[in-house]
Amino acid sequence: MPHAHLHLDPKVREEARRRLLSAKGHLEGVLRMLEDEGVYCVDVLKQLKAVQGALDRVGEMVLRAHLRDHVATAHERGDVEEIVEELMEALKYR
Amino acid sequence: MPHAHLHLDPKVREEARRRLLSAKGHLEGVLRMLEDEGVYCVDVLKQLKAVQGALDRVGEMVLRAHLRDHVATAHERGDVEEIVEELMEALKYR
Amino acid sequence: MPHAHLHLDPKVREEARRRLLSAKGHLEGVLRMLEDEGVYCVDVLKQLKAVQGALDRVGEMVLRAHLRDHVATAHERGDVEEIVEELMEALKYR
Amino acid sequence: MPHAHLHLDPKVREEARRRLLSAKGHLEGVLRMLEDEGVYCVDVLKQLKAVQGALDRVGEMVLRAHLRDHVATAHERGDVEEIVEELMEALKYR
Repeated sequence: MPHAHLHLDPKVREEARRRLLSAKGHLEGVLRMLEDEGVYCVDVLKQLKAVQGALDRVGEMVLRAHLRDHVATAHERGDVEEIVEELMEALKYR
Repeated sequence: MPHAHLHLDPKVREEARRRLLSAKGHLEGVLRMLEDEGVYCVDVLKQLKAVQGALDRVGEMVLRAHLRDHVATAHERGDVEEIVEELMEALKYR
Repeated sequence: MPHAHLHLDPKVREEARRRLLSAKGHLEGVLRMLEDEGVYCVDVLKQLKAVQGALDRVGEMVLRAHLRDHVATAHERGDVEEIVEELMEALKYR
Repeated sequence: MPHAHLHLDPKVREEARRRLLSAKGHLEGVLRMLEDEGVYCVDVLKQLKAVQGALDRVGEMVLRAHLRDHVATAHERGDVEEIVEELMEALKYR
């Protein structure tokens, strides 16, 4: 791993885990919807979007911690180019 | 339910369920990552984005079936306004 | 043109043109910002996002009219497959 | 201005201006399309998306320069919290 010594803030890691568990529960709810023959398409689209919103918010938490703890100190560490390029890659639209 | 008689195509429902199960497995992978103290932020961001991409593709499948089966026949059913407004709502950015 | 006889609703066309003109004015504002040596990156990012928000709203107006006038009548015209596929293509994330 | 002394890299500023000029030309093309009574909705949607793509790429250039020049040095300047919060705000989905 290129940044063996750079880790996600433990508090953020725990909060991200907690939120991701709830997003997983929500995803399981969509799976149950899809077992119902009578399910209506737009209801599925809305629930999928809610799960994606929850994943967005987890992403935002992790991004904020990364900017604060690792990007903001990159110049002092001397790995600015690498840190910036890998982050630009991760931020690209799906 | 406003469209009690409109249902998601059974073949699409089954395929969406199958893909969503795999997205759930992927999400569980991210949860395991978050149990590792040494996890690096950008790795989490990339895996979250891969799960989002999988959910996007499930959404696209359901949207395509909805356009084909329910929106394209709305004028004959007489519920164009309702079908269009609820779809616009579901398509809004997160 | 595959749909020589399908046109954007004149009222929506006029409103879209009006909004696009204002988005263009906004874009010209960003161009002026970029002539200032002292311009700050985040100010440019925010203004770009405002222009994109305006373009999103024009896109939503055109999409709504298309769903209402052309997709909702596709089954009666007999071109469902073509109408759905070209719309799915146009709706893909950037 | 909170960061009077932080400016967008001149070379990036010039390239962003050049690309934005071309995006503006593209936008003017969409405006001309909207003067044609026979314009088809999906053609407008596709051209709008192309303009959005061009604006995305300008945003990416400016973001990359900001991360490299201003975020990566924030810890040494002592304004990490402010730089991170304003960037998170600018990166939010539209």
